[in-house]
Amino acid sequence: MTMDLEQPAGIARLLREVRNKKPLVHNLTNYVTVNDCANALLAVGASPVMADDIGEAEDIAALADAVVINIGTLNARTVQSMFAAGKKAASLGRPVLLDPVGAGASHLRTETALWLIKEIPFAVIRGNVSEIKALLAGSGSTRGVDADERDLRADGLSGVAVAANALARRTGTVVAVTGPTDILANGDRTLAVSNGHPLLSRITGSGCMLSAVAGAFCGASPGRVFDAVAAALCTMGLAGEQAAARTAREKAGTGSFRTYLIDSLSLMDETALAGGMKLEQFA
Amino acid sequence: MTMDLEQPAGIARLLREVRNKKPLVHNLTNYVTVNDCANALLAVGASPVMADDIGEAEDIAALADAVVINIGTLNARTVQSMFAAGKKAASLGRPVLLDPVGAGASHLRTETALWLIKEIPFAVIRGNVSEIKALLAGSGSTRGVDADERDLRADGLSGVAVAANALARRTGTVVAVTGPTDILANGDRTLAVSNGHPLLSRITGSGCMLSAVAGAFCGASPGRVFDAVAAALCTMGLAGEQAAARTAREKAGTGSFRTYLIDSLSLMDETALAGGMKLEQFA
Amino acid sequence: MTMDLEQPAGIARLLREVRNKKPLVHNLTNYVTVNDCANALLAVGASPVMADDIGEAEDIAALADAVVINIGTLNARTVQSMFAAGKKAASLGRPVLLDPVGAGASHLRTETALWLIKEIPFAVIRGNVSEIKALLAGSGSTRGVDADERDLRADGLSGVAVAANALARRTGTVVAVTGPTDILANGDRTLAVSNGHPLLSRITGSGCMLSAVAGAFCGASPGRVFDAVAAALCTMGLAGEQAAARTAREKAGTGSFRTYLIDSLSLMDETALAGGMKLEQFA
Repeated sequence: MTMDLEQPAGIARLLREVRNKKPLVHNLTNYVTVNDCANALLAVGASPVMADDIGEAEDIAALADAVVINIGTLNARTVQSMFAAGKKAASLGRPVLLDPVGAGASHLRTETALWLIKEIPFAVIRGNVSEIKALLAGSGSTRGVDADERDLRADGLSGVAVAANALARRTGTVVAVTGPTDILANGDRTLAVSNGHPLLSRITGSGCMLSAVAGAFCGASPGRVFDAVAAALCTMGLAGEQAAARTAREKAGTGSFRTYLIDSLSLMDETALAGGMKLEQFA
Repeated sequence: MTMDLEQPAGIARLLREVRNKKPLVHNLTNYVTVNDCANALLAVGASPVMADDIGEAEDIAALADAVVINIGTLNARTVQSMFAAGKKAASLGRPVLLDPVGAGASHLRTETALWLIKEIPFAVIRGNVSEIKALLAGSGSTRGVDADERDLRADGLSGVAVAANALARRTGTVVAVTGPTDILANGDRTLAVSNGHPLLSRITGSGCMLSAVAGAFCGASPGRVFDAVAAALCTMGLAGEQAAARTAREKAGTGSFRTYLIDSLSLMDETALAGGMKLEQFA
Repeated sequence: MTMDLEQPAGIARLLREVRNKKPLVHNLTNYVTVNDCANALLAVGASPVMADDIGEAEDIAALADAVVINIGTLNARTVQSMFAAGKKAASLGRPVLLDPVGAGASHLRTETALWLIKEIPFAVIRGNVSEIKALLAGSGSTRGVDADERDLRADGLSGVAVAANALARRTGTVVAVTGPTDILANGDRTLAVSNGHPLLSRITGSGCMLSAVAGAFCGASPGRVFDAVAAALCTMGLAGEQAAARTAREKAGTGSFRTYLIDSLSLMDETALAGGMKLEQFA
């Protein structure tokens, strides 16, 4: 059941699974990028549902094929629902993903993310290098919700891979660290994805959308979470490349890029994905 | 004051009323599609206001020409404000609309929708077939917030019309059930609207925007709620057709479609609407 | 350190400061236009962060170069965080901006805005004429969140300037009143900015985005708040003109205009800004 890394077609085929199964993805997420997440999920072929009241968090999670928890604008009310939904889905064997937005930027975010990780057996954690390092260290100095460039420069990609594997081993999850090159690790294997484009960091929500889309791939192929996240990273990165090329051709700006990113997600097919993915074993 | 169904111009003229009166539409709605709702309202010529704190829900409702209650991401805090705003507006004779998003998907949503219907004399209920059937049955098995295709296949359009009229009679409201063909019923008359396009279900918010836009039409023509909702269904459906045609011409995706939908709403005029509407008596 | 008004280049250079410093702007804002605000901030070169839980409001404010408080969908929970974040940032000497959305439309909004002004030493207040007059009067009759045209017609631009200066003197802030012509006043000097386009009032969020962008300019040049807000008014207004011209060329509607507005913000450069700004001393 493991993928053959020499065969991108095997990874790309997971997109077909999303389109065939139309997984229901339950998002407990922030109010900044929630609309983008819903549209990204619909674009790849999944069905989004957002529900964060404690009175229904478990019910909706029980219906869902995957649950994505994103702490972008966490508050006391919704954190409670994140625990309830995450535990319920995990108890039913469904993949639960964590996007620890801004971990390291405030005590509350770091502590909440660590507490969620302690209580919920996440399948996947997806963050930028500053967030992942904050989770490892138990504290951090993230400046807002964007990665601190010093965190990347300090260690290089090898340092990122070490951190990703350390967190993966400690938590028993698949860890994806996104940046100019993405690192995917499970404590045992490490992949590098070099799809993507700098414009992705000039719009809000590209990280959140990636986490949501990873939820769609995991929900469609719950037995292949590592491969599913690899496919999501390649899909979002390649869509970003396509959208950036179109933006450049039209001499347009970041508003158009955002629209074209969703366009590319909705138009992505297996052949283009297999041909365009830049996925390799990380030494 | 009733429309002549043979004269689409009479329905299309209601768009002029929206543009002339610029009705203020108070939305108590979800945080996923709220921006889309605001832009759709502005595009058709209305003025949106969102306010969900109990400390101002009645004050804002008292200013508004219509109130739209959407339970897409309901929570204990905002539900309280929905009751307050809905009762206040109804007491002043203003049309109040309900979008029971996800009714049937959780006990909380079904119960809340039924409780709202019990307490507030709604003018209009607008949902998909799964939601409407859940309201009729008092429970449901909606999978998330999208219509369950089995609910439509099970009964066909006649079954939808029966359900819509049953709910309309029980609640004393106009009921709009949207899908490939929309059904509009008041327990006495039944119309079918076959405007629309499948792309509308590939973006988030098309249902929510329709409910908001229906609020604009009702707020502009409060004495003609049935016709106003018919006009809203045709307007949104035709805008969807126009946006889909432009998306296809440009070989674009769902991101562009979403933008073009708002474009079409803002550019819609009475002549195009009268010429393009597909509205008929349902036998 | 004061600008020379005869040299638009001096004002336009403040855009370079934003791009160089990438100020972190902490937004406590409404859920309707929050995504637009984040994308507008990224487009001009700033880094947005949204955080409204009382458990982290001060921590995030302490990291930020500017704090923008927007009461568009205020509620009891987030108002508490607005006070905490605003006071913290002000105590650290960072500019804090207020967008009193809908002041005058409800008792709650007017009272909350006045209470915020009493407790927090704001650097800037940015609103439409109805909101500014409601703050001056301590009450109002704003119809929703859009300016009441009667408020403008009643007094003309001179009346707006008088109101802006009165509020500026009373509160010790820079006051920006936006409309067909914007007025910027500090109780001593008054500028008029005639950049802009009517389409800006046909989409939601143009006012909110302006307040957020003003936060970026103030955060990048905290010693020149008056000039920074002038630069923000010109930047947003000119971007609106460019986006409107492109919308007209393409015979597009308000959905495209919204996208093109962000495009223009992201593509704006100092030369275009200096050449296109319509900024003058108001007699």
